[in-house]
Amino acid sequence: MKSVRTVIVNATVVTMNQKGEIYNPGFVMFEDDVITMTGEMKDLKEDASLADATRLDARNAIVMPGMINLHTHMGMIPFRGLGDDCKDRLRVFLIPMEQKSMDEELVYLSTRYAAAEMLLSGVTTVMDMYYYEEEAAKAMDEMGLRAIAGQTVMDEGACDFEDPSEAIAYGENLIKKYKNHPRITACIAPHGTTTCSPDLLKEAYRIDSFYKVPFTLHTAEMDYEMEYFEKEKNMTPVSFLNSIGVLGKETLAAHCIHMTEEDLDLLKENNASVAHCIGSNTKAAKGVAPVSGMNQRGIAVGLGTDGPASGNTLDILTQMKLCADFHKNETKDRSAFPAKDIVEMATIRGAKALGLDGITGSLEPGKQADLVVIETDSANMFPVYDPYSALVYSANPSNVDTVYVAGECLVEGKRLKKSNMEEIRKCLLNKMKQTDFGKYMELNRDLDL
Amino acid sequence: MKSVRTVIVNATVVTMNQKGEIYNPGFVMFEDDVITMTGEMKDLKEDASLADATRLDARNAIVMPGMINLHTHMGMIPFRGLGDDCKDRLRVFLIPMEQKSMDEELVYLSTRYAAAEMLLSGVTTVMDMYYYEEEAAKAMDEMGLRAIAGQTVMDEGACDFEDPSEAIAYGENLIKKYKNHPRITACIAPHGTTTCSPDLLKEAYRIDSFYKVPFTLHTAEMDYEMEYFEKEKNMTPVSFLNSIGVLGKETLAAHCIHMTEEDLDLLKENNASVAHCIGSNTKAAKGVAPVSGMNQRGIAVGLGTDGPASGNTLDILTQMKLCADFHKNETKDRSAFPAKDIVEMATIRGAKALGLDGITGSLEPGKQADLVVIETDSANMFPVYDPYSALVYSANPSNVDTVYVAGECLVEGKRLKKSNMEEIRKCLLNKMKQTDFGKYMELNRDLDL
Repeated sequence: MKSVRTVIVNATVVTMNQKGEIYNPGFVMFEDDVITMTGEMKDLKEDASLADATRLDARNAIVMPGMINLHTHMGMIPFRGLGDDCKDRLRVFLIPMEQKSMDEELVYLSTRYAAAEMLLSGVTTVMDMYYYEEEAAKAMDEMGLRAIAGQTVMDEGACDFEDPSEAIAYGENLIKKYKNHPRITACIAPHGTTTCSPDLLKEAYRIDSFYKVPFTLHTAEMDYEMEYFEKEKNMTPVSFLNSIGVLGKETLAAHCIHMTEEDLDLLKENNASVAHCIGSNTKAAKGVAPVSGMNQRGIAVGLGTDGPASGNTLDILTQMKLCADFHKNETKDRSAFPAKDIVEMATIRGAKALGLDGITGSLEPGKQADLVVIETDSANMFPVYDPYSALVYSANPSNVDTVYVAGECLVEGKRLKKSNMEEIRKCLLNKMKQTDFGKYMELNRDLDL
Repeated sequence: MKSVRTVIVNATVVTMNQKGEIYNPGFVMFEDDVITMTGEMKDLKEDASLADATRLDARNAIVMPGMINLHTHMGMIPFRGLGDDCKDRLRVFLIPMEQKSMDEELVYLSTRYAAAEMLLSGVTTVMDMYYYEEEAAKAMDEMGLRAIAGQTVMDEGACDFEDPSEAIAYGENLIKKYKNHPRITACIAPHGTTTCSPDLLKEAYRIDSFYKVPFTLHTAEMDYEMEYFEKEKNMTPVSFLNSIGVLGKETLAAHCIHMTEEDLDLLKENNASVAHCIGSNTKAAKGVAPVSGMNQRGIAVGLGTDGPASGNTLDILTQMKLCADFHKNETKDRSAFPAKDIVEMATIRGAKALGLDGITGSLEPGKQADLVVIETDSANMFPVYDPYSALVYSANPSNVDTVYVAGECLVEGKRLKKSNMEEIRKCLLNKMKQTDFGKYMELNRDLDL
């Protein structure tokens, strides 16, 4: 098959390469799924090779690497906005409704919805973890995302498997199934440090390490988790993970809010990485993770939205703003966490946390063409003195105009290109109406009035 | 002239009235600038009076009172994104460039831009303070906003007047000029507690109180301000304002980050109100104002964006989210600052802080038709179990579909109705190019590439 060439011209190209180069005005050229060249417009050779290329004039726009969402639960769209301010919503709403109403079809439809929403906001790579993850993987693949589908396992029965060993077997099969897929990887994602036995954690880690896929779990997030490890084990969650041998370069610890200096040292020594979920953590009043300590040690920290039940929004731009504001305030230094660092967390550091920094996270020849065009025509995006500043402090998801994953254009002119948002929502809504979720809905979309 | 009737039907109507009523599905009816009726759809009488009414079907949308921005500097659009992470940007960028490049025309063009941006995000009432405020008032009036135009005065010469007594006289004339205007009020807005002498503060307060217009100033915001009052006066900024008799029901203290319990008591005893600028304060690493203490005392606290140089965004939806996240985290209680309280801060409490709660801030018969239609068709707005939750945790400015101020439709289908954003931007850009701002711009919009 003849290869397809695309060239995006006249843009402010924020490469996020090691030198931190910005080409302005610049271009990005790719052939099928691979970036072949980037540079200043003056260095773009208008030769025969460009004659049949698709050309996108991104004048006045910022082109950046696709954003990376390191931690979410895409199957949970039906929970968004349900009991947000409830003190113990986990036990009042989430667990009972998950047990009662979550099934394979709902995971599929919800993940498809979440994938659409993320793409529209410029997220191109996502680390998902939930139940019936084969359905999630299928949905993410169909939508064109780059993703890691993490099958959640826990001691107690979940909505998909009563027996964790069945969930482990299902997860390992999923890993094998997607072993050679160009965009989708699967892994086993244990629920957390207290909800999985040491044996379950070790078994999941053994399998994930064997297949060289991420091992991700909720870590040092909950008050009861911290109390449990202090009282029962005289340890921290991180030192516990280290003690059972599951802290390594495959480990992506989500949250890491409550950390000692020794915990941070352990993460660094073991080359583990962190998914920082500032929006979810602060909305739930759990605290601000010590990211400056992580950054000082060179731990790979990227951004995660957490699930739509926790953080509500699924875009990384919102997390970038929250991350800057919270950490500047936390460190009492307005020059701390400068905009460029925040954009790094959203892109190349997120890729590094997933072991995908050879594949995505920056605009460099040889890498995958995962990229986002952010328009600056909307009122909130003027003027632009510094594109990093504009991305972190001014932008919102509605400024995302065009999105490519692996060279395929999935969003164009702020709309999904190969799927239809209305149809995706309708399917999810119809399914939700058949469950208890339908009963709770205040705004009865599409019902007869 | 024949009166114009409008009725918005089939919406989820969030009234923000004292009972906290939500009509779902509901309607809002208004005649010219005044709301005449609100209620459940089943109570809407389809009689002759509705025959010639303009009818807006807001199915699947949330209708809420227009949002109120209690503190901003609209003339500062040219500064947005300039040196965001610079330690001392006030002295490095803001003050020198303000002195060199700010003039009447730039204030007019920038305020027009900011007014357009705010309207597009659902802000209908704004408390502005800056220089050449007559130009700002003119721009805000032309754009259709409801606004208080605060002429800033300070001891040191500013870009408009070298002599503060001239600024005071200009301010008083502006108050007189707009005395009977239906939407625009003017006031004198002293810069702050350390940048104005006690006599200047007292004179401004005397005039503002006489005309019953807001007296607003930066209060307990800056580190150097706190040090000055502690070392030089053995007082706090608030106790100082009280000692010179300028703390009263006209006083709207902006920021109030660094407060003692006694300061909060003084604000309450004197019926003063507070503009809470969480985004600006935390981005500048200044700290989180003790809003729970203010709320416990029943002080009227609303939300402000601060200027585009400080907070970058000018919409109140972003402030709502930041406010919820920061204060839940600060109080270590996920049920604190519930979504309904946050929406109150953005609407009725903001109106109260300005003494405009008889005029705007809720959807009730007799009040002005200042209202916003928020669509829930975009991906980020599904599902809706609770409209307050959706507004605080899910919405972003791009969900604002239609905006009315005083019964006039100013935004329709996410676009300005009586003015043109491109033209507004072009005029501002052309002016900026003639100043030093043009030299700093990284993204050379509309220049030849």
